[in-house]
Amino acid sequence: MEKPTLPKGTRDFGPLQMARRQFILETIKSVFQKFGFQPLETPAMENLSTLTGKYGEEGDQLLFKILNSGDFLKEVDKTLLEERNTKSITSAICEKGLRYDLTVPFARYVVMNRHEITFPFKRYQIQPVWRADRPQKGRYREFYQCDADAIGTQSLICEAEIILMIREVFNRLGISDYTIKLNHRAILSGLAELCDAREKESSLFVAIDKLDKIGVEKVKEELRSRGFSENSLTVLFDILQAKGTTREKLELLSGQFTGISTGQKGVADVKEVLELLSSFNANEEHVEFDIALARGLSYYTGCIFEVKINKVSIGSVGGGGRYDNLTGVFGLPGVSGVGFSFGVDRLYDALEELKLFPKEAQISTRVLITHFDETCKRFGLGVLNQLREKGIASEIYPDSVKIQKQFEYANKKLTPYVVVIGPDEMKTGVLAFKNMKTGEQRKISLPDIISELTRAI
Amino acid sequence: MEKPTLPKGTRDFGPLQMARRQFILETIKSVFQKFGFQPLETPAMENLSTLTGKYGEEGDQLLFKILNSGDFLKEVDKTLLEERNTKSITSAICEKGLRYDLTVPFARYVVMNRHEITFPFKRYQIQPVWRADRPQKGRYREFYQCDADAIGTQSLICEAEIILMIREVFNRLGISDYTIKLNHRAILSGLAELCDAREKESSLFVAIDKLDKIGVEKVKEELRSRGFSENSLTVLFDILQAKGTTREKLELLSGQFTGISTGQKGVADVKEVLELLSSFNANEEHVEFDIALARGLSYYTGCIFEVKINKVSIGSVGGGGRYDNLTGVFGLPGVSGVGFSFGVDRLYDALEELKLFPKEAQISTRVLITHFDETCKRFGLGVLNQLREKGIASEIYPDSVKIQKQFEYANKKLTPYVVVIGPDEMKTGVLAFKNMKTGEQRKISLPDIISELTRAI
Repeated sequence: MEKPTLPKGTRDFGPLQMARRQFILETIKSVFQKFGFQPLETPAMENLSTLTGKYGEEGDQLLFKILNSGDFLKEVDKTLLEERNTKSITSAICEKGLRYDLTVPFARYVVMNRHEITFPFKRYQIQPVWRADRPQKGRYREFYQCDADAIGTQSLICEAEIILMIREVFNRLGISDYTIKLNHRAILSGLAELCDAREKESSLFVAIDKLDKIGVEKVKEELRSRGFSENSLTVLFDILQAKGTTREKLELLSGQFTGISTGQKGVADVKEVLELLSSFNANEEHVEFDIALARGLSYYTGCIFEVKINKVSIGSVGGGGRYDNLTGVFGLPGVSGVGFSFGVDRLYDALEELKLFPKEAQISTRVLITHFDETCKRFGLGVLNQLREKGIASEIYPDSVKIQKQFEYANKKLTPYVVVIGPDEMKTGVLAFKNMKTGEQRKISLPDIISELTRAI
Repeated sequence: MEKPTLPKGTRDFGPLQMARRQFILETIKSVFQKFGFQPLETPAMENLSTLTGKYGEEGDQLLFKILNSGDFLKEVDKTLLEERNTKSITSAICEKGLRYDLTVPFARYVVMNRHEITFPFKRYQIQPVWRADRPQKGRYREFYQCDADAIGTQSLICEAEIILMIREVFNRLGISDYTIKLNHRAILSGLAELCDAREKESSLFVAIDKLDKIGVEKVKEELRSRGFSENSLTVLFDILQAKGTTREKLELLSGQFTGISTGQKGVADVKEVLELLSSFNANEEHVEFDIALARGLSYYTGCIFEVKINKVSIGSVGGGGRYDNLTGVFGLPGVSGVGFSFGVDRLYDALEELKLFPKEAQISTRVLITHFDETCKRFGLGVLNQLREKGIASEIYPDSVKIQKQFEYANKKLTPYVVVIGPDEMKTGVLAFKNMKTGEQRKISLPDIISELTRAI
């Protein structure tokens, strides 16, 4: 018999990983809820007509498609089969695909339920997505996304709140060295206009986005090859490389954007977001205005965000921005909003690298009842019942085996306390109670154990 | 542009449904954890070699298969295509399928990780599964399963704990009128032996399983057509229709099973489970020993369970049992265990029918800040920040619109309290605080609001 395996690029999450993932996900979820976002879940499968054409040519290639049920070849044209036209046959034999992200299903949901939804609508969604990407370190074919979006309002309060939410999540996770990069698409458009390159905006954004990775000279080279003049490059890089505080950079831009209304709008929005933060009595800690932040996705139109954890190997753990046409592709124009997405897998890796997972994150019971023999075990059931009645998660070793094996079980499950029941304990009702961390063992009554454990919760 | 739709048999879960589902799932999860079960998650996609052949011919038909990426037809034999041999082509163009239940992936996980797992291993798993079933009322193509299994132990303590867990879940959900049906496969085998029908066991089980639905006469007819003698039917139905307490029924069986060791083993196990309950200081409330309970799945070998909510349209909301060969199909024999699965969708429908969802289950903030104009809104941000700092989930209406529209938003989101900020409030710091349920509005300072709300949590 062949040994079973997992599909490439997928993973099991055992008890330890689950406990750690739940620590991350519960943290994010409770912050989202505290800020008024409500949960949504959509099906894993969507019609391919919903998904295709939304992620570019490459994205379409990466969609997992689901074979139609039953006699799926019945209606397929004979010549199609003979020609082995993969693309046409695919659409003939597959109607559905797996969710590729949470944004398109959200847009679909909004369009289908627009008459029932109360706008502004603030939803969060935490679900897996699937991409037929080549698996490699840190890149999986199934991974979780963690999105929050506020739609149906232009208010920049939402942008300020995204910054506050990120800070609260990181604070609760115990991450202190990180940067929330902030920029605005209109500032980038303003730069393009300043370089006389309005029609080459996207080449400009793509090039700028690589500054971090390939450096100034290579980006300049790329822009030259795209027809940017030396003069415009000088103007551009004077701005991109400007030092100073956020205010100073904004002043510099404002001065440069004379007569460029798009650019001015971007500067004004960023200023407004920072002012709103101060109305929240919040400071600008961790926020860095970064003129070179571009972010790939073309649908952003306003502020854009990216969060990086400093001094770890995988830096970027989230991003987002404002868009002004979420649902246009489904025939409902004018729905604007702003969203942010946490990368759970990367946060997991970063927390592991920084050794920030609380040891207690292992989900386990607090007490294991161990026993010398069948009679003691039976006596232990009554003890167990009393612990559970007080809400104390606890269990009994179910088989009658050597006490050492029972202790091993507690050790491996990281159970903090063990109760030992032998004939003496049954006679006196005074139990042996062991702290597995310190190794200390005491004789103590059950009511005292219960009051100690309920106090410690 | 075509309006987007959902694939047949799938559903979105909006904020209200999500809140209710989370109420159910969190309840089950916390009970599982209290009893020492640890979380596991497996990928949505499994290799088809893992899935096929595990659910019978019909199950294989109901697997959702995923088309291989890239040029999936490249290696497919020409004659296969010409013959349109659906089955062979499927296995040539699909390597993966969607999870059909949680049991097979669990077995696969156990085999792959058997050297790291601490046995007895108690895991719970709450994830969606997919079946290409014909959609109908109450039957979906994507639905959640909620499984707990304890493997690597023969101890009947696990069976007793399943009963305790079910009762705790139902108690927390507020369901009081329900029945936990209990039987044992060996008792059914004993009955078959008693009828001289050892080799017709499965026809007997299938027929008995229908007693509830089609009644005594039709079941007898079916058994006659399978070659059961009148004499054996008399013996059988005298037992199946016996009245009396659980002890009386067990005594009756014990008397009948003279020389039938299988049957005696079943009787002894059921007795032991009930005795263990009493060692737990627990009664037998809601437990009904039902000799006619058969449950379809063939891999059960010991106790079997089924839970029914009485007086609702969809009764059965969960089931399970003991099996002695979970992982044999993957080459690891001798792993026995016992499991139970809650049907979340059916629990949802039942709770709705019984009107048992707590109104507060709607996940929302507790306070909405409303405002007369831009200046008041900005003032409101400081108020909002103080509420959140005290851990109170709250939000501000992000746009400057008529106060009535802001109140409507709070109403629709079921937000219990609204703070109104106008020029007076800004001047005096005394805020208008409205209880949306009673309609009562008071003038009260922010610290007093906070202490009221933190007290009420």
